[in-house]
Amino acid sequence: MAEGTGRPGAYRKGIARRRQILDHAIDLFAERGVDGASLRSVADVIGVSHAALRHYFSSRDELLVEAYREHERRHSRSEDPAEGGPVAQMVRSADSNRVVPGLVQLYATLTADALQERHPLTREFVQARFARVRAELAEAVALGQREGRIAADLDPADAAALVVAASDGLQVQWLLDPGGVDVRRSLELLERLLPSRAGRTGGDG
Amino acid sequence: MAEGTGRPGAYRKGIARRRQILDHAIDLFAERGVDGASLRSVADVIGVSHAALRHYFSSRDELLVEAYREHERRHSRSEDPAEGGPVAQMVRSADSNRVVPGLVQLYATLTADALQERHPLTREFVQARFARVRAELAEAVALGQREGRIAADLDPADAAALVVAASDGLQVQWLLDPGGVDVRRSLELLERLLPSRAGRTGGDG
Repeated sequence: MAEGTGRPGAYRKGIARRRQILDHAIDLFAERGVDGASLRSVADVIGVSHAALRHYFSSRDELLVEAYREHERRHSRSEDPAEGGPVAQMVRSADSNRVVPGLVQLYATLTADALQERHPLTREFVQARFARVRAELAEAVALGQREGRIAADLDPADAAALVVAASDGLQVQWLLDPGGVDVRRSLELLERLLPSRAGRTGGDG
Repeated sequence: MAEGTGRPGAYRKGIARRRQILDHAIDLFAERGVDGASLRSVADVIGVSHAALRHYFSSRDELLVEAYREHERRHSRSEDPAEGGPVAQMVRSADSNRVVPGLVQLYATLTADALQERHPLTREFVQARFARVRAELAEAVALGQREGRIAADLDPADAAALVVAASDGLQVQWLLDPGGVDVRRSLELLERLLPSRAGRTGGDG
């Protein structure tokens, strides 16, 4: 952060430049995945110098994390987490991911990196993201319980972890076998366990 | 493979030596994970020369794949895939993984590598493994349907992909937050959807 340097113009310009680089990086990862992406190779492809890229992102991990964070920020802006229900939410997210397998691959890479000691920044990001997404989904499950849609004896935190896991795991299987796995259909089986507000499983109306 | 070299003694000895190296590698990964494991660093730790290790495993990918394959072979020997039910099977497997987080990390690494072009051998292994595990679980779901335990309108292949995904995803979340995620409890929620033979959800006996 460059606050307090007394050069607000340069600061704003820096922010804009950083965002522009992120845009290019997101497009690049979406199109080609993160396969072997080093800061140097990313700089080459998006047409900035290695030094310029390093000025904004001190490591490959930071670039990957910030690219994914920005991608999610854009997508979540138009979404109400509680809308529909916990499963409907993950189905919508999986649907939008299907058009950009490169970003699903980026997410899987971040998750795998997070499991290893050498990637503390990635680990922190992924841990915090999991905690936040689980908390949001647990909230949606608890709401469904108050509304009488979801069985009251089901633990919201356990259910939230299950829905996140199913969504993550199904997207990995789909990337490896697009014809053999249908993310939406498999995820929608969870609607039987955790019905959404406008559920397809209803028959009492 | 060294078949047909006319030296059955040397061949047998080679097999034994390879297995011995695999044993050490599995222990090493179980204890310390695969963090940054190169062939050279693995050779150092298990006390063989880099050249000897390369004689048996031509790449890091091959060593990781073969170590995981051997680990699974040992564990699956005593298991009947149809026993209990599709969910019970994954719960047992998750229980046995919990004592060796390093091997859960190895599995996550293989899965992430499989998504990238640079790891064709890993990709082939993970694709084949997913296809096999899904087929076994779909079989267990279909059996449950024939026995009247599992809803007949549920697609066995969709359900199988869901169970594998939930199990994989939950183990990743657990590795990152052992206190915040209970793999067994979350997985067991799927018993409500796919009851096992000796199900805990019964109440009609």
